Amino acid sequence: MSEYLLITISAASAVLALLFAYLKSRQVLKAPEGTPLMQKISLAVRTGALAYLKRQYRVVIVFFTAMFVILFILAICGLLTYFVPFAFITGGFFSGLSGFVGMSIATRANARTADAARHGLDKGLRVAFSAGNVMGFTVVGLGLLDITLWYILLKFVFKMEIGDVAAVMITFGMGASSMALFARVGGGIFTKAADIGADLVGKVEAGIPEDDIRNPAVIADNVGDNVGDVAGMGADLYESYVGSILSTCALGVVAFGSGLSIRAVALPIVLAGIGVIASMIGSLFVHTKEDANQRTLLNSLRRGTNSSAIIGAVASFFAVWGILGIEYYGIWLAILAGLIGGVLIGLSTELFTSDTYKPTRKLAESSETGTATIMIGGIGLGMASTILPIIIVGAAVIVAYFCSGISDPGNGTLGLYGISLAAVGMLSTLGITLSTDAYGPVADNAGGIAQMASLDSEVRTRTDALDSLGNTTAATGKGFAIGSAALTALALIANFVEKIDVAGGSIDLSIMNPALLVGVLVGACLPFVFSALTIQAVGRAAQSIVQEVRRQFREIKGLIEGKADPDYATCVDLCTKASLKEMILPAATAILSPIIVGLLLGASGVAGMLCGATVTGFILAIFMSNAGGAWDNAKKYIESGAHGGKHSESHKAAVVGDTVGDPLKDTAGPSINILIKLLSMVSIVFAALIAGVHLI
Amino acid sequence: MSEYLLITISAASAVLALLFAYLKSRQVLKAPEGTPLMQKISLAVRTGALAYLKRQYRVVIVFFTAMFVILFILAICGLLTYFVPFAFITGGFFSGLSGFVGMSIATRANARTADAARHGLDKGLRVAFSAGNVMGFTVVGLGLLDITLWYILLKFVFKMEIGDVAAVMITFGMGASSMALFARVGGGIFTKAADIGADLVGKVEAGIPEDDIRNPAVIADNVGDNVGDVAGMGADLYESYVGSILSTCALGVVAFGSGLSIRAVALPIVLAGIGVIASMIGSLFVHTKEDANQRTLLNSLRRGTNSSAIIGAVASFFAVWGILGIEYYGIWLAILAGLIGGVLIGLSTELFTSDTYKPTRKLAESSETGTATIMIGGIGLGMASTILPIIIVGAAVIVAYFCSGISDPGNGTLGLYGISLAAVGMLSTLGITLSTDAYGPVADNAGGIAQMASLDSEVRTRTDALDSLGNTTAATGKGFAIGSAALTALALIANFVEKIDVAGGSIDLSIMNPALLVGVLVGACLPFVFSALTIQAVGRAAQSIVQEVRRQFREIKGLIEGKADPDYATCVDLCTKASLKEMILPAATAILSPIIVGLLLGASGVAGMLCGATVTGFILAIFMSNAGGAWDNAKKYIESGAHGGKHSESHKAAVVGDTVGDPLKDTAGPSINILIKLLSMVSIVFAALIAGVHLI
Repeated sequence: MSEYLLITISAASAVLALLFAYLKSRQVLKAPEGTPLMQKISLAVRTGALAYLKRQYRVVIVFFTAMFVILFILAICGLLTYFVPFAFITGGFFSGLSGFVGMSIATRANARTADAARHGLDKGLRVAFSAGNVMGFTVVGLGLLDITLWYILLKFVFKMEIGDVAAVMITFGMGASSMALFARVGGGIFTKAADIGADLVGKVEAGIPEDDIRNPAVIADNVGDNVGDVAGMGADLYESYVGSILSTCALGVVAFGSGLSIRAVALPIVLAGIGVIASMIGSLFVHTKEDANQRTLLNSLRRGTNSSAIIGAVASFFAVWGILGIEYYGIWLAILAGLIGGVLIGLSTELFTSDTYKPTRKLAESSETGTATIMIGGIGLGMASTILPIIIVGAAVIVAYFCSGISDPGNGTLGLYGISLAAVGMLSTLGITLSTDAYGPVADNAGGIAQMASLDSEVRTRTDALDSLGNTTAATGKGFAIGSAALTALALIANFVEKIDVAGGSIDLSIMNPALLVGVLVGACLPFVFSALTIQAVGRAAQSIVQEVRRQFREIKGLIEGKADPDYATCVDLCTKASLKEMILPAATAILSPIIVGLLLGASGVAGMLCGATVTGFILAIFMSNAGGAWDNAKKYIESGAHGGKHSESHKAAVVGDTVGDPLKDTAGPSINILIKLLSMVSIVFAALIAGVHLI
Repeated sequence: MSEYLLITISAASAVLALLFAYLKSRQVLKAPEGTPLMQKISLAVRTGALAYLKRQYRVVIVFFTAMFVILFILAICGLLTYFVPFAFITGGFFSGLSGFVGMSIATRANARTADAARHGLDKGLRVAFSAGNVMGFTVVGLGLLDITLWYILLKFVFKMEIGDVAAVMITFGMGASSMALFARVGGGIFTKAADIGADLVGKVEAGIPEDDIRNPAVIADNVGDNVGDVAGMGADLYESYVGSILSTCALGVVAFGSGLSIRAVALPIVLAGIGVIASMIGSLFVHTKEDANQRTLLNSLRRGTNSSAIIGAVASFFAVWGILGIEYYGIWLAILAGLIGGVLIGLSTELFTSDTYKPTRKLAESSETGTATIMIGGIGLGMASTILPIIIVGAAVIVAYFCSGISDPGNGTLGLYGISLAAVGMLSTLGITLSTDAYGPVADNAGGIAQMASLDSEVRTRTDALDSLGNTTAATGKGFAIGSAALTALALIANFVEKIDVAGGSIDLSIMNPALLVGVLVGACLPFVFSALTIQAVGRAAQSIVQEVRRQFREIKGLIEGKADPDYATCVDLCTKASLKEMILPAATAILSPIIVGLLLGASGVAGMLCGATVTGFILAIFMSNAGGAWDNAKKYIESGAHGGKHSESHKAAVVGDTVGDPLKDTAGPSINILIKLLSMVSIVFAALIAGVHLI
């Protein structure tokens, strides 16, 4: 394969994805926005979300400037090439842009989805899903665009070797990860502080319904869905997508040597291109009938993702054949292992968090003996749910490593290239999987607007159905994000080891090496500490919202009777300030840990730390998101009439479970994905420093 | 050092410890048992506890018989020596005996402590602490006795090489671990099911005080304290103690080669002997003044443990000098690292769980915004509390490895011997640390009896003070148990690797080896799954108690008015049945996992699994015991008058926190210690099988 062809494919895929996103956004914006009240609410949410993002970017810019200077100094010292600081900046920029575009369309699609739902379930689904499409394809398109531009610059303008090109390109993952971490942590704190604050005072103390327009925190709650679940997730998955492709390219160069290396670099990029087209075709299959229930709605989304996966699987066989040759069929099996692994993780998440299955039903039942038993039950459920994803990812790793090694046994790096390709396989159809994921918050917001604008109960039934579906896709999306993050992180560890080798550092990867062992201990602890920081941050921020909402109910006359308007802006402002303040420490932990561990324990300690953090982070993230998801759905199940229904003692217990699960599943859990990749990325960028300076 | 001298020291230490335990038990039994009602209650608790143990042993005997047959068959196949099945049985027997003796005295000391407290605080403290002494020194004495007897048998009767002696002896750790697991898991489920059941119906629904004699589950609750916290802990620490000594001996033989190996084996045994004497001296310092508050009471126990530690530290210097020579001073530093590490872990536990410090106070404060915030706060606190013990153990590992390697750089096994010696150092003063730990449940029971027998409020104030102190020692004891377990488990992994080498199996310890990496993933998941099993078992068992207690309150006329007696025996029986049934699956998981992983992924996979399980198990156990401890003490702090005191909304929220923490800190957390060691022990015993037969 000539590299001009490669560039053409890559650029064409990027343009195609962005064009599709643009067309979908036109489609969304063409839809009417509903009544003046709906427009007003939507505008308030959009304004709040944009104001938050603006201030978040201001903080982030300070950080990026400081990091740019540090990286530049390291480059002057000869520990990095001069491209790295710039690669870092562009990674951050595109990651942030992905989140921004996704959020812009999501905040415009919420009222439109609610309005479309007035005319039918399928109409509502289409608007919300189209908004999801915009996000999904923007992420994919921008990722491929960034890769293409850098490739052209380094290869053709600076005439670098392919190995050096791959080595530089991987460093912009650090910029993307840093941006993603700020977006996820900041957004995650915002959304849950607002949510908990709104619920604790509004629902529990004042006894008004969820999403009631009298609740001063209700707009902040809806803003939170957008800045956390949309902007945060966009930045996160941009980073996973690009990270998996680039780490595969870098490993491919090592595995294949100079002869075939251009082909090894081409394969993941071509797979990504295939994924774009497969996702587009899959998106066409997403529609539903008017009398759809929860299961048929879910099936309509599944039809889309599954057909994309099948198309991707078949096409990737020909890609491997054409690029590497039929003797590398084992590599196709590695890609397949990733694709299938992703689907299975989604199913296992559903098994543990959907109320159509036994675990969540049992959890709902345990609410009958009170809050304590539903808490214990949820913790137990979350812990038990970790085994299936572990087995799935473990099997994918083994299959990917050994199958891709078939054609050249003894070439260990080829096996690692296979593991990395499994991650690419899992993420190749990101265009559509992310669409179903981003669809969730749009539907959630639409439900909120329908409630606040007092639309017909029939409309609300429809938006409830869409919202409920969004809960399921959010849970499976989380499983998918963490699964791909784990595989990508493993590939990045291999890259780190390679970087240390190149830098001439010594590394002893044996688990009986005490420096590595202590590194594993410290690394395994990091996700716990990181989660503690984010969970406690949510707790603090929520308490300030609780006090503000209580104050407004107390001081604004006529508010509870619906005669006066609450002061939404103050709640939004409080959440903004709290989350920006609270996101600094977790981010600093993530960035400084590899450097401190590296200076103390050397490269072996860092390798151990990455391994420990990846493994524990993976498990802890699954524990938290599944426990949280199950509590959420147990509550919904009770609200649907089981165990006494709404306003029963069981329901009260379930509400507490849901509230406790919120920061676990929506703040700490998803942030861990980024943590484990950021740790690896920082280690890779600072590899030369760590190789040169260390205590042990 | 001649080996006859070694045998003499070892036997003499064993006899000395057992003699001390005997004298202390005489001292306890001489004390009067109080009023007839107190005697009756104590008898009921004792009868229930013995009945439980009898039935537990019946189940355990079936298991041990089956395992004996399996091991015997493996011996016939040449995969083990014929000693192993017998070593397995004796390990189990002595571990069980340790728990049994401790429990026998504890159930006799409870009423006596309550009675002594009628005459003064110091009198009460002395009886309870003496009962703790019996347990502490029985564990130590039986451990050394078992080691001595086997040494004599193998070395002098069967004339085996020292290396083979060490190799056989380590296998009785598997018997001890298996017994300990049954005791901890079964006892842990019993105690928390009874506790939660008694609290949920008695305190919350019926509104009667804790430990009220009208509560049908109150005897079961007190029985549970003994079968879980005493018998379970005795078996657990017996296993840690013996395991750390034997793994050190085995590593010593490898590290020093045939010339010095007898000395390397002698050192840990002599250290244990020193610890016995140091613990006895320390025990003499434990007494208090009548007007003691919580802090001076704690200091009186600390005086004992600290003076033992200092004596042990100084004496061990001379032991190293005398046995190995002054040039091995680095090895003394390794021992010291373990001793100091143990003390520091205790302090860090206190920092996070005692209400004299900020974390628990903040947690108590978060109860003001309701159950959800105190739940979130506790989870965050527990997660944050993992970093200090990790740093402490990590530092101990680094110091022990590099210092002990000073005298022979490049001898890696010497460093591992040093890590193992750090565990011996930490556990050498087990005589007294376990005494302070076993003191806790005795004081707890004494408080219960004082309440049930309606003793004067002055007496109850004293037993409350003793009980409250017991909570702190229980928490520090748990930190200490898990810290030593982690170090021991690391040493056992080194032993496993050595065994595979000897068996001629191939092993690749690199973390980039996919089999090992997947092993780490699976291993890291095991503590989560294991905890899920035990936590859910508690939940199920507690629900059956809740229903039984509700039934009794409903059906027994005059019960709530105090005119009729409840049926205590049915609750005890229900707990017994439930816990025996529920302990099978977790135990099977622990024993089968290494074998299954070994057959699938080979020795490298098992090494990875052990590493993953040790690291995550360590962290998860600390998370669970500190979160649980902090919730418990936050509740006690509120009961002492803060944030509205008893019967306030804050208190209700704190009670839920305490209830949720119970199975975490008293069932799942402590069981993990044993899990991680049992996994290693099973791997060591089945090493030859794993080396021979595997898929990858």
